[in-house]
Amino acid sequence: MTLAEARATLASLEEALHAYRHAMGVLNIDGETAAPKRSSAGRGQTLAVLGGVVHEKLTAPSTRECIDALYAHRSGLTAAELRRAELLKEQSDELALVPVGEYMAYQRLLEEAGDVWHDAKRASDFPAFAPYLEKIVDYNRRLAARKDASKPAYDVLLDLYEKGASAATLDPFFAMLRSELTPLILAVGEKPRPDASFLAGSFPVDRQRAFTDRVMALMGIDREDCAVAESEHPFTDGFNNHDVRITTHYYEDAVLSSLYSVIHEGGHAIYELGVAEALQGTFLAGGSSMGVHESQSRFYENYIGRSLPFCRALLPVMADCFPGRLEGVTPEMLYRAVNAAGPGLIRIEADELTYAMHVMVRYELEKALIGGDLKAADVPGEWNAMYKKYLGVDVPDDRRGALQDSHWSGGAIGYFPSYALGSAYGAQMLAAMERDIDVWGPVAAGDLSPVTAWLREKIHRHGQLLTPARLVENACGGPFDPSYYVAYLKDKYTALYDL
Amino acid sequence: MTLAEARATLASLEEALHAYRHAMGVLNIDGETAAPKRSSAGRGQTLAVLGGVVHEKLTAPSTRECIDALYAHRSGLTAAELRRAELLKEQSDELALVPVGEYMAYQRLLEEAGDVWHDAKRASDFPAFAPYLEKIVDYNRRLAARKDASKPAYDVLLDLYEKGASAATLDPFFAMLRSELTPLILAVGEKPRPDASFLAGSFPVDRQRAFTDRVMALMGIDREDCAVAESEHPFTDGFNNHDVRITTHYYEDAVLSSLYSVIHEGGHAIYELGVAEALQGTFLAGGSSMGVHESQSRFYENYIGRSLPFCRALLPVMADCFPGRLEGVTPEMLYRAVNAAGPGLIRIEADELTYAMHVMVRYELEKALIGGDLKAADVPGEWNAMYKKYLGVDVPDDRRGALQDSHWSGGAIGYFPSYALGSAYGAQMLAAMERDIDVWGPVAAGDLSPVTAWLREKIHRHGQLLTPARLVENACGGPFDPSYYVAYLKDKYTALYDL
Repeated sequence: MTLAEARATLASLEEALHAYRHAMGVLNIDGETAAPKRSSAGRGQTLAVLGGVVHEKLTAPSTRECIDALYAHRSGLTAAELRRAELLKEQSDELALVPVGEYMAYQRLLEEAGDVWHDAKRASDFPAFAPYLEKIVDYNRRLAARKDASKPAYDVLLDLYEKGASAATLDPFFAMLRSELTPLILAVGEKPRPDASFLAGSFPVDRQRAFTDRVMALMGIDREDCAVAESEHPFTDGFNNHDVRITTHYYEDAVLSSLYSVIHEGGHAIYELGVAEALQGTFLAGGSSMGVHESQSRFYENYIGRSLPFCRALLPVMADCFPGRLEGVTPEMLYRAVNAAGPGLIRIEADELTYAMHVMVRYELEKALIGGDLKAADVPGEWNAMYKKYLGVDVPDDRRGALQDSHWSGGAIGYFPSYALGSAYGAQMLAAMERDIDVWGPVAAGDLSPVTAWLREKIHRHGQLLTPARLVENACGGPFDPSYYVAYLKDKYTALYDL
Repeated sequence: MTLAEARATLASLEEALHAYRHAMGVLNIDGETAAPKRSSAGRGQTLAVLGGVVHEKLTAPSTRECIDALYAHRSGLTAAELRRAELLKEQSDELALVPVGEYMAYQRLLEEAGDVWHDAKRASDFPAFAPYLEKIVDYNRRLAARKDASKPAYDVLLDLYEKGASAATLDPFFAMLRSELTPLILAVGEKPRPDASFLAGSFPVDRQRAFTDRVMALMGIDREDCAVAESEHPFTDGFNNHDVRITTHYYEDAVLSSLYSVIHEGGHAIYELGVAEALQGTFLAGGSSMGVHESQSRFYENYIGRSLPFCRALLPVMADCFPGRLEGVTPEMLYRAVNAAGPGLIRIEADELTYAMHVMVRYELEKALIGGDLKAADVPGEWNAMYKKYLGVDVPDDRRGALQDSHWSGGAIGYFPSYALGSAYGAQMLAAMERDIDVWGPVAAGDLSPVTAWLREKIHRHGQLLTPARLVENACGGPFDPSYYVAYLKDKYTALYDL
């Protein structure tokens, strides 16, 4: 295959695969937000058929020839072309490990597992979900062994979500967080919790919906490019820079839950919306890694969204959306309330300080599951024991325990550490951003555009052009250093709680 | 190709095509209900790619060989297999007429046209939409000429939606309706309009949403198999008997608009939900024709939904959903109000009597457009003149005129007569049903299950197994006879208006 032929094959593969991923993504969003309950088997079948075609295309002899030709001519490729070739090769290599029939069966399994998880969560019935988790774990273990039998299986999976991540780097990372944060958590626990009574009670869901619109406007998200829907578990998906979706979940008696879900998913959305026009439709579209993606979502959620300047901008909007509910509340009171720290049950509602502990529990459980040291059926017991040990809380039921997150039912094992890594990347980015621009003046005035412009320039526009490590280093002016994260949390909580 | 091979090819084609249609259908629903505004170009591209694959599969040499082999062995096929072969051949023949590149460009055009139509309707700006309509008309004329240059192009298109329909049968059908119904319309026009003041004013949209749930329950639709969403123009799509979607559009000051949209689309949904399990995923799934589909939607909407017994069942539900709004209203008053007849602007809100005139206007305009006697840009002028002539109303703007319906923007030219044909089929079915079972006792008690069971047995379960003519004849015990429709309307409106 000549270089010209290889380039044409690459472009036509990208066009086709983009269409399939778009269709499969919309099928998935539809399934989570709008489709009737009994539609999952039919959707699973359709996803299996389309997934089978994707498998076939990515592993076809012509695709392998294209990859070989691109690599043979690598000195003649642009940096972007070389990266597209690398990403194609990665995907092709990975799918080639799984026979197409097994891959299609797994797509059907995931669709069914998602359905079962929804019911199981509602009924707090882990045993109903356990056999599906067992099968998902099996598939992932098999995949890891096929990919690199010389490495621990969980390391192979971690690398899928964050290139270069492994237990060798994450064990000390979490150990450091545990040792640095535990004294802080204990110290905060001895202080009185800030007054958050003005956030208790009913915030009607229709008003929360209107509030979402205002919050997205405050974030500078153009709604003609980004829609919002409702699902059991909030998520984001993006197909191009004019078609991004976020979801949230409203609880009438927990207004912060949806608020911070919207800001979190809005951060993912801003990333997807900011990828350069030239990368759209190619393998370079989308985020660099799950860790980098979570760095953006958690940047808006926490570094911006839980800052005092943001609370100044948010309060009048919130007061306007919930008339009479926030009389006499000051920005400082709101700031203290949205940062009320303390051990809790739900990861996505956790304060920044305990958040990493929630992630660590999942990391340890996944390591044990994939390592073969834990059966799926025994997850709730271990989960509850670890929540007691690390967070000091008793888990009352699996709905608020091992069934709370959708990730495992969707096949994502090895994803969770991305949240902690992303949080740590974000703290380092904030330090760099504060060196470059006036962050807080505009934020306090309700103008997030300098923040977004900085992130767009440093992170978003590059799409998948750079590896996560390189991207973080470029943005922060130095290699990844988790001490920024710890320093940020220490400073913030010491001041907040007069430690 | 042996018969066994042909059977296997047929089954595998059905599996693949079903997946593509499912994906494309969900992309379309998502586009109409949930996707952000600027997503249409990306969706058009994806639909073009997937449509191109469908085109390729249906016109592949192996598909032609499969069709030839099935036809060569037709004496050895079951009736269902033969019908599947026929339907495959029809689709294959039709797509073979259009080069794949042209077909893909048309898919992109339709997506763009839908987007432009939405904006044009909102702005009442027909000139913005006219160039798209012109291109859609051109494509359809070309398609018709390729299919059968010996016939008038519009006849070829009519046959796509209703096998056997042509101007030769529809001209006299509409002429008959015009001559029979015009005196009735004029006579009704001289009578005072019934009191519908209790339906005027605000019916809050969130209450209307709750009312939709109750109405669907009253229709016996299992919501675990059928979801409802909101779109500019109501529509239904179904993927299998556990995944059907309807949409509606709420107007705060026009509660009947969504109510009868929901009952109409609910009728389509009940049809899709009632197709036999054995036909799911095959070419035999779905409705027999657009006329038969509309016979079912309009059956529930009018023959049931605008009957006095149904009003008896509906009134307490409605009163419950809109507390205080319907005090003192009797079923008879509601019956008169929902049957208030008179010339209006909007087809989907028309009474049964004038409805056929709305369809006739579109039929005449389409005939002229496709016949080359009318330019797209001149549609509003002709539209308005015909509304004046046949309905006696002045069209104030294109939003309530030539831009009101979504059909043309979606490429459907030749569809509209299905509504009038379906209404006429429905009247004949009602007569047959009344001979077979007690229709009205259960309906008045809020039990539509005998009605649905009859329709399921006679119509729904057969899917596309029978041609529309055969299906109507089987259900009604005689060939299609539009005089039932006229007799029904005469009886109903003579009694209602003391003519």
